[in-house]
Amino acid sequence: MSVANHHLTSSTPLSSSSSSFFSHSKLISSRAQIVAVKVKNGGVCKCVATSPAEQIAHTTKVSRNPNMGKLQAGYLFPEVARRRAAHLAKYPDAKVISLGIGDTTEPIPEIISSAMAKRAHGLSTLEGYSGYGAEQGLGIEDGDIFVSDGAKCDIARLQMLFGSDVTMAVQDPSYPAYVDSSVIMGQTGLYEKDSEKFGKIEYMKCMPENGFFPDLSAVGKTDIIFFCSPNNPTGASATREQLTKLVQFAKDNGSIIIYDSAYAMYISDDSPRSIYEIPGAKEVAIETASFSKYAGFTGVRLGWTVVPKELLYSDGFPVAKDFNRIVSTCFNGASNISQAGGLACLSPEGLEAMKQVIGFYKENTNIIVETFKSLGFKVYGGSNAPYVWVHFPGRSSWDVFSEILEKTHVVTTPGSGFGPGGEGFVRVSAFGHRENVLEACRRFKELYK
Amino acid sequence: MSVANHHLTSSTPLSSSSSSFFSHSKLISSRAQIVAVKVKNGGVCKCVATSPAEQIAHTTKVSRNPNMGKLQAGYLFPEVARRRAAHLAKYPDAKVISLGIGDTTEPIPEIISSAMAKRAHGLSTLEGYSGYGAEQGLGIEDGDIFVSDGAKCDIARLQMLFGSDVTMAVQDPSYPAYVDSSVIMGQTGLYEKDSEKFGKIEYMKCMPENGFFPDLSAVGKTDIIFFCSPNNPTGASATREQLTKLVQFAKDNGSIIIYDSAYAMYISDDSPRSIYEIPGAKEVAIETASFSKYAGFTGVRLGWTVVPKELLYSDGFPVAKDFNRIVSTCFNGASNISQAGGLACLSPEGLEAMKQVIGFYKENTNIIVETFKSLGFKVYGGSNAPYVWVHFPGRSSWDVFSEILEKTHVVTTPGSGFGPGGEGFVRVSAFGHRENVLEACRRFKELYK
Repeated sequence: MSVANHHLTSSTPLSSSSSSFFSHSKLISSRAQIVAVKVKNGGVCKCVATSPAEQIAHTTKVSRNPNMGKLQAGYLFPEVARRRAAHLAKYPDAKVISLGIGDTTEPIPEIISSAMAKRAHGLSTLEGYSGYGAEQGLGIEDGDIFVSDGAKCDIARLQMLFGSDVTMAVQDPSYPAYVDSSVIMGQTGLYEKDSEKFGKIEYMKCMPENGFFPDLSAVGKTDIIFFCSPNNPTGASATREQLTKLVQFAKDNGSIIIYDSAYAMYISDDSPRSIYEIPGAKEVAIETASFSKYAGFTGVRLGWTVVPKELLYSDGFPVAKDFNRIVSTCFNGASNISQAGGLACLSPEGLEAMKQVIGFYKENTNIIVETFKSLGFKVYGGSNAPYVWVHFPGRSSWDVFSEILEKTHVVTTPGSGFGPGGEGFVRVSAFGHRENVLEACRRFKELYK
Repeated sequence: MSVANHHLTSSTPLSSSSSSFFSHSKLISSRAQIVAVKVKNGGVCKCVATSPAEQIAHTTKVSRNPNMGKLQAGYLFPEVARRRAAHLAKYPDAKVISLGIGDTTEPIPEIISSAMAKRAHGLSTLEGYSGYGAEQGLGIEDGDIFVSDGAKCDIARLQMLFGSDVTMAVQDPSYPAYVDSSVIMGQTGLYEKDSEKFGKIEYMKCMPENGFFPDLSAVGKTDIIFFCSPNNPTGASATREQLTKLVQFAKDNGSIIIYDSAYAMYISDDSPRSIYEIPGAKEVAIETASFSKYAGFTGVRLGWTVVPKELLYSDGFPVAKDFNRIVSTCFNGASNISQAGGLACLSPEGLEAMKQVIGFYKENTNIIVETFKSLGFKVYGGSNAPYVWVHFPGRSSWDVFSEILEKTHVVTTPGSGFGPGGEGFVRVSAFGHRENVLEACRRFKELYK
C-alpha cells in the first residue's frame, strides 16, 4: 500500500498550498481512492499490492531513548481516559460523569473572553497586529516572571534547564508530570517494582498521619524539591509554619524548590498563597502557576513561572539567566490572544469574575465532601483546593476506581496513579457542572449507603 | 531590604486572589512603599536596613547544568535585538527598519481572526466552552499529526524525545534552534573556537558552490539529520532529486531526518512542499511546520509535527508512540483559540487568504533581490522563500551587519550567526510593510551605489 500511496502522491500535481499538513490530508484521501480502485478494478489492486521486500519494515539505526522505556504505563490521565472509553464501549447508553481529570467545565467570564476576542479581531488591523512577543510575555518588565503556556509546559522546560545530573524529591502522592518529566530527562534510575518507586527519586510521604506534610528529618538531600500546595491530588495546603520549615530545609541542603501554586486562589484560610510569602524563599525557590483553574484556561493555555534573580547555582550563576536562555531557545511565548485574556484576568473586574468561578467550584467541593462524610468515609482536602481525597483503607485504588466506574458510571482518579503514597485513596475532582456533581453524589450515596 | 519586604508581606493580609503573580506585584509596590517610608522616617529606614549576614547572598548547592555553559553568546536573535537597542540609544531619532528577525508584519486575514474571536466568545457559553483538548489537537484523528504551539517548541520536544545520546547533523548555515537545543540536551560536546563548531555535530556545508545542497558523500553518519527546506537562512529549496538523495542517505545510514518545512508555501517552482512527497520518506523522516509565516501566526502560536507510524527505532518501536508520551507529559496542546484560527486557515477561503499574505511577502522579496542585484551583489534565495541571502565575499558578517545598521539604520541578520558556513553573508528578511521595504532598499542603494 505504501508504495502505491507514494507513487500517487508524487505523480499528483500538488497545489501551491500544499505542505506536509495539506499533502497529508491528500494522502488520506489518496488511500481512500486506492481502496475504491481496488473494489472497482482487480488489476489495479494487484498492481498496488505490497511486494515481499516491502513487507519488511525499515527500522532506523537510532536507539530508542532508554529513559522513555522507564516510564510506567501510560501517563495517568490518558490511562484513565482509556478506561473511560472502554467503559463507554461496554455501556454505550450510560450517562458517564467525569470527576476524574482536573479539567474545568464552567464558561470563561465574559470580561475575559471579550478581551481575547477583541485581541483576535485586532490582529486583522495594522495597528493591532503583532508578531513574535518577548518570550517572557505580557509586557511585564520585571525579569523574574516568565509568562508561559501553562505550568505543565514550564515544568518540562525547568527539567531541560536542570538537565540529567540533578537529583529530585517529590511529595508522595504528587502530580505525575514531576516524576515523569524527571524520568524522561534521565534523572531517576530504574523503576523498582517492589517499592513502586524510581531508585533515585526521594519520595516525601504525605499522609493523614503527618498532616500531608513530610517529615523532613527523614528526607534525603536532593538538588530539586518539587512541592505543590494546595496539593494535587490530596487537596492539602501547607501552613506558613510548614513552608517556613521547607524553605529552611532547602536552604540547609542547598536545594532548589519548584513550588507549584496552580491552586493558590482556592485557599480560604491563611495558608500562604505563594512560597515568596516565606522570608528567604527567593534564594531557594522557583514558583510556577497558571490561569487554568482560576479562569477556565485549561484549553486557552496561559501560566507563569517566577525565577527570582536571587536564586543562584553553587557557582553563583543566576538560575534566571539560564532559564531565559531555555525559553528563548525552546519556546516562543504564549499566544498573544491568551495573554490578552490574562491581562483581563488581572483587571479588578477580571479578578472578581475569577473569584466567582472559584467560588462555584468550591461549592461543588463542599457537596462532594459532605456526601462522602455522610457515608462515613474519611475525607481530606477540599477546603483549600478543588480536589477531595477519599480514603478507602486497605483497598486498591484502581479497584475502587473500577468499582465506582462500573456501578455509578462516574470517572474518578485512582490515588495510586499519583505515587505509591496514594494507594488506598481516590481523588474526586470538583470540576463539573452542578447538576453532574449532584447526580454523581446521588449515585455515590446509592453505592455506599 | 528583602527581610523588610518579607515581613511586610507576611504581616499584610493577603486577599484571596493572591498567588505568586499577584503577590509579586504586591511585593513591587511594597518596595515602593518602603522607599517612601525611608524618606519620611529614618527610624524605620534603620529598622529595615540589611544586616551584614543578609549581604552574603545564599548560593544553592545545585550545580549549573554544564550544557548551558556551552551555549555560544546569546541566542542569535536576542543578540541582534540587543545591538538594535544599542543603536537606538546612540541614534534616538533614527527611523530604524527591521529586516532582521523573520517576524511577520501584515495583519491576519479577517476570515481567520474572526474565527478566533468567535471561538473566544464561545468560551463564555456553556455550549462553546471546552477545557483541556487532546495534546494532538485540532480534532484530527490521524495519529501521525501532532498539533503544537509552533515548530520551535516541537523541535525542543523532539530533542527531549531523542535524549542526550544521539548524534546529529545540521545544514551549515542553519536556524540556530537546532544546534542550541542539541547543546542544551548534551548531544554536542564542547564548542571549538578555531572551527566555530561543536565537536560532535556534523556540519553539512550548504554554499553557492554546491547549490546549497550538501555533498552527502562527505557527511558522516549521524542518528538525527536536521534539514530545512526552503531553507532559513539561505532561502534555498531542495529539489525532488536532492530530497530523494537525502532520503536514501538517511535510509542507508539508519538516520532520522527532522524536516522543517515552515516555509513550504513560499515555493513557486516544483520543489517538493513536503518530505513525504519522496517515496520511502515516512520510514525515515519527521516533518515539522507552522502557520506562523503563512497566516501571520508568529504571535498566535500554532504549528504541527508529523511523526509517521512507519518510523521505527532500531528495536522496531514506533517513534510516534514515544512522541505521544512526550507531548502528553510535557505539553498540554495548543491554545483552543489558536486552533480555531488554524481550522479557518484550512478552509478554502483561509487558504486563499494565506496565499495572498504569502504573495505580498514574495513581492517584497523580489524588491530586495532586484535591489541587491542592481548593486552588483551575488544574491541567493528569495524565489522560494521570504529570505534573501546576500554575499559579501571576504567580509565578516557581523561587520557588514554593523555597517548596514550604522549607515542605513536597517537591521539585518549576520550570516555567521547561523553557523560558520554563513560567514560572508547577510540575511535580509522580506517580512516588512511595503513602504519600509522600499525605504530600506533606497538606503541600501545609497550605501552601496
